[in-house]
Amino acid sequence: MYTIGIDIGGMSIKAGLVDEKGKIIYRNKEKTLETAEKVIEKMKEQIYDLLSQAKITVKDIKGIGIGSPGSITSSTGVVEEAYNLGWHKVRICDELKKEFDTEIKVSNDANVACLGETVFGAAKGYNDVVMFTLGTGVGGGIVIDGKLFEGNESKGVELGHTVLVLGGEPCTCTRRGCIEAYVSATALIKQTKKAMQEDKASKMWEYVGGDIENVDGKTAFECSKLGDKKAIEVRDMYIYYLAESMLNMFNIFRPQAFILGGGVSAQGEYLVKLLDDYCKVRNYGFGGTPAVKILTATLGNDAGIIGATALIK
Amino acid sequence: MYTIGIDIGGMSIKAGLVDEKGKIIYRNKEKTLETAEKVIEKMKEQIYDLLSQAKITVKDIKGIGIGSPGSITSSTGVVEEAYNLGWHKVRICDELKKEFDTEIKVSNDANVACLGETVFGAAKGYNDVVMFTLGTGVGGGIVIDGKLFEGNESKGVELGHTVLVLGGEPCTCTRRGCIEAYVSATALIKQTKKAMQEDKASKMWEYVGGDIENVDGKTAFECSKLGDKKAIEVRDMYIYYLAESMLNMFNIFRPQAFILGGGVSAQGEYLVKLLDDYCKVRNYGFGGTPAVKILTATLGNDAGIIGATALIK
Repeated sequence: MYTIGIDIGGMSIKAGLVDEKGKIIYRNKEKTLETAEKVIEKMKEQIYDLLSQAKITVKDIKGIGIGSPGSITSSTGVVEEAYNLGWHKVRICDELKKEFDTEIKVSNDANVACLGETVFGAAKGYNDVVMFTLGTGVGGGIVIDGKLFEGNESKGVELGHTVLVLGGEPCTCTRRGCIEAYVSATALIKQTKKAMQEDKASKMWEYVGGDIENVDGKTAFECSKLGDKKAIEVRDMYIYYLAESMLNMFNIFRPQAFILGGGVSAQGEYLVKLLDDYCKVRNYGFGGTPAVKILTATLGNDAGIIGATALIK
Repeated sequence: MYTIGIDIGGMSIKAGLVDEKGKIIYRNKEKTLETAEKVIEKMKEQIYDLLSQAKITVKDIKGIGIGSPGSITSSTGVVEEAYNLGWHKVRICDELKKEFDTEIKVSNDANVACLGETVFGAAKGYNDVVMFTLGTGVGGGIVIDGKLFEGNESKGVELGHTVLVLGGEPCTCTRRGCIEAYVSATALIKQTKKAMQEDKASKMWEYVGGDIENVDGKTAFECSKLGDKKAIEVRDMYIYYLAESMLNMFNIFRPQAFILGGGVSAQGEYLVKLLDDYCKVRNYGFGGTPAVKILTATLGNDAGIIGATALIK
């Protein structure tokens, strides 16, 4: 049986009809309109379009899962606040239920990505999984015993907003020293730019064509592969921040697998090896403590659509 | 129906016959003997003694729950390593099952204390609870949806071994800057002694009768109540470390309640007020994010016995 997954983003709303193996059979994509009402109306059209492409009706699907940015109350299906959408208390599940008589669920986009990667992606076969999504910020996802853990009133799992460097860099959340301020792609770019200013001979300048505004999350990694000393310095410091953040999660959750998603995770095995080398000699506990398998996300841009369908049982 | 709870400590083994409301009806206590074999033999006597006091047999109890220090595999009932007992791979549940035909379970002592406080103590009525036990080290406990969460192979929940101060004080676990190195009673005592060395006029000297070796977890708190400036400095710094550690757990778990146990928690409402004032203005998220109720443990020295019985359903 098929399930519909919808990925709400600041730029676009992506929807897909997904089979039980997590394969997207039909898909569509619309620009994110300016109000929640308009988005929901457009979303209905997107759902009808998918059903029509598959020549089925809403009775033929298991349900509709939605991943949304912001603060969500998943039990009531409400997007409480989503600043980059301009949404406030949007009862998205109720609105869609008026049109579609099927199970409809919503969860935070980082949660949904973690669930998708666990059920269909990188961590398939694992039951206890923690994920960092390294992007503009740091999103967190936790799967315990195969089920999404969201915290009381689904307001937990803000893994990016845990302090690693007490009194350190200011964070968007008002605290100082949160891991988001050290391991997000934004933070890596900042660290890279600072290092380049300190070393005008670094190969990183050539890599970005002399324009520091071209620095992205790949700059330090790619130039460290070329042996550039300053780039290696940036890379090693970033690995130190990231691995220490991950070890905190290992010691709290002792998951079977830990997934890295977001732009930085495109470094794949190169990144995993560096993190593994750092973490394995600092594994807390005794001989019997199980190691944590470090993985990079495999669902890429489809994680939102595919993960959202995993909200429907 | 009664349940037997056993609290294994480095100094003594405490056992109790506990009713369904968490009240200890009969109890006994023995010195911790030098080998696991001897402890288990003595433990059998303690169990028979409780049954005999109550004039019942093992058929009349629901089961036997055990709290043990160290690294436990709860699914197999094995104490893998308990350094302060000198235990290595002790199959405690299997050994007791040879003698008693009833359900027998073991978990880590900090887990058991958290479960006990949730089911019968400070956090009765709450389903999602996190606990710090502030003692020689920092123990952690997590209850999710009324059930103990222990991590994969019950090797998680090492909340004391999460880094708060990257590159900070060395921790017993080999990492640097773990919260255990800042908020344990041991750390508080160290912080208090250091402050006293810096200020020979502090009232803390009088409080400890001029002998710095008399400093304990109460010294700074009690002298700050007397208005001593240096004591207030120690107290405020300790609150900063503790509150920031707690906020990390709030943002990860967003529990309904957070319990503080161990010696420091004897400060009760005085401690809670200071932590509450710090945390409430730093509550992550939006208007709808639920606040976390901060509580101090109420089961005291009986937490181990009572909590262990909550392992038996």
